Amino acid sequence: MPLKKLTVLGPGLLGGSIGLAARARALAERVVLWARRPEACDDAMKFGAADAATLKIEEAVGDADLVVLATPIGVMGDLTAKMAPHLRPQTVVTDVGSVKYPVVTQISHLLEGKARFVGSHPMAGSEQAGISAASKDLFEGRVCILTPVEQTDPDALRQTADFWKSLGAVVRTLPPLEHDEIVAQVSHLPHLVAAALMNHICANGPRPLEFAGGGLRDTTRIASGPPTMWQEICVTNRDEVCRALEGLIEQLEAVRRMLHNKEDANLTAFLKRAKHFRDEMNFRK
Amino acid sequence: MPLKKLTVLGPGLLGGSIGLAARARALAERVVLWARRPEACDDAMKFGAADAATLKIEEAVGDADLVVLATPIGVMGDLTAKMAPHLRPQTVVTDVGSVKYPVVTQISHLLEGKARFVGSHPMAGSEQAGISAASKDLFEGRVCILTPVEQTDPDALRQTADFWKSLGAVVRTLPPLEHDEIVAQVSHLPHLVAAALMNHICANGPRPLEFAGGGLRDTTRIASGPPTMWQEICVTNRDEVCRALEGLIEQLEAVRRMLHNKEDANLTAFLKRAKHFRDEMNFRK
Repeated sequence: MPLKKLTVLGPGLLGGSIGLAARARALAERVVLWARRPEACDDAMKFGAADAATLKIEEAVGDADLVVLATPIGVMGDLTAKMAPHLRPQTVVTDVGSVKYPVVTQISHLLEGKARFVGSHPMAGSEQAGISAASKDLFEGRVCILTPVEQTDPDALRQTADFWKSLGAVVRTLPPLEHDEIVAQVSHLPHLVAAALMNHICANGPRPLEFAGGGLRDTTRIASGPPTMWQEICVTNRDEVCRALEGLIEQLEAVRRMLHNKEDANLTAFLKRAKHFRDEMNFRK
Repeated sequence: MPLKKLTVLGPGLLGGSIGLAARARALAERVVLWARRPEACDDAMKFGAADAATLKIEEAVGDADLVVLATPIGVMGDLTAKMAPHLRPQTVVTDVGSVKYPVVTQISHLLEGKARFVGSHPMAGSEQAGISAASKDLFEGRVCILTPVEQTDPDALRQTADFWKSLGAVVRTLPPLEHDEIVAQVSHLPHLVAAALMNHICANGPRPLEFAGGGLRDTTRIASGPPTMWQEICVTNRDEVCRALEGLIEQLEAVRRMLHNKEDANLTAFLKRAKHFRDEMNFRK
């Protein structure tokens, strides 16, 4: 059943893409977008990401069936507190935050008895940001992780899962803490590694880049992502990201030792293991 | 002026692509391919990578204007010694080895007075291997680094540069030692990092891959490359690769410290610097 009113809070890459995707698939009779700045409302309308855009939170979320928090995680708490009085108990609220335990804990608490919250994390970012990079197909084939907790309403969970599936996503479920541990490895760590590679290679200036091929280009693509957003993500998931960094540093120390000590057969075995896993990821694509 | 006879030694991804590209662009009256196994000769003919394919090195290189060594670096020395008696002094010999100082030193010595050698490194690999992945456009827009030394014949250098330009490559020049230092950073290090990421993430099995997005996919693509080839490359460039690993480990330790010590502003600065460099690489694309 299509929603009567879908509200998207935040007109960035994800929020804009949700609007475009929902409208293209006729998932709601009306898609309403909330933004902090008038120009962002204008842009959202210009790109066709919403049927209406407003600066007023009460207008945005009033009567909504589904509200998607698509702002940076740092402002989700404040925004939730502001919208809470205007929600109906039946409204389903979800988010797109890249870190779940603190976000789910905070928002669940703020919405207790006021609406039904389900945490979501669509793994569909890009090194590009803003609505100009938004696409109605952004979620096609991408994993979206839902993070229900004991108190999560099963019907709200089902509705949220259906919503993401309708946008083309592959829905998986994880407890919030386990989510944060896994994405520290598969998302936050690769981002920091890409950044560390760039900063190491360019430590004495960008000249080495003149000699770069497709390998470095792909390995470091995500280092172009928005720095403040990624800082916020890593800081919010501090302990898990630290642990992930430690694990990777250990692996790199091990490779360095193999090379230095001329354990050439061990190096081959190391590369073979990595290829085995990476080929498996291709297979799952 | 098109070559009368172009000889390619080794029917892998690079050798096959050179044959396809040279034939598609009519760079030589005849493209002859040498392979170690009869089936490889058959494949090369089937894929249209050569006008003739042979197992006999003397037949392959006799009368050749340009010979391209496109085998794994570990066998280049032996193969050069075998072909040396059959070369003409005017023949230009080049290679595609990913490490240059040891290769250039060895081959220059073996060919002294027998042919004119110029080291080449087309930065056009892929995570795929073998002639089935070859493409006539593999070198289009890719950097090819030539590594002349004091004794390099200027006319041979010019011919080699012209050859790679004809295949669509962007030709740059570096002394062999500097080449090895730079590619340790921009090519060999990213490969080991991609492998280390896979091995770390899958240390307790491949389950985390179920939750991976496009970031991890791109960051680790090259980890699917041929393990024995990459082991050989890293081992041949051992000292520089060790140094590159040490530099990257330092950067990762620094990020870990920033996170752990809550130096959040420093983390933002780190990510901004990386984005600045990565955006510059996009600009150069």
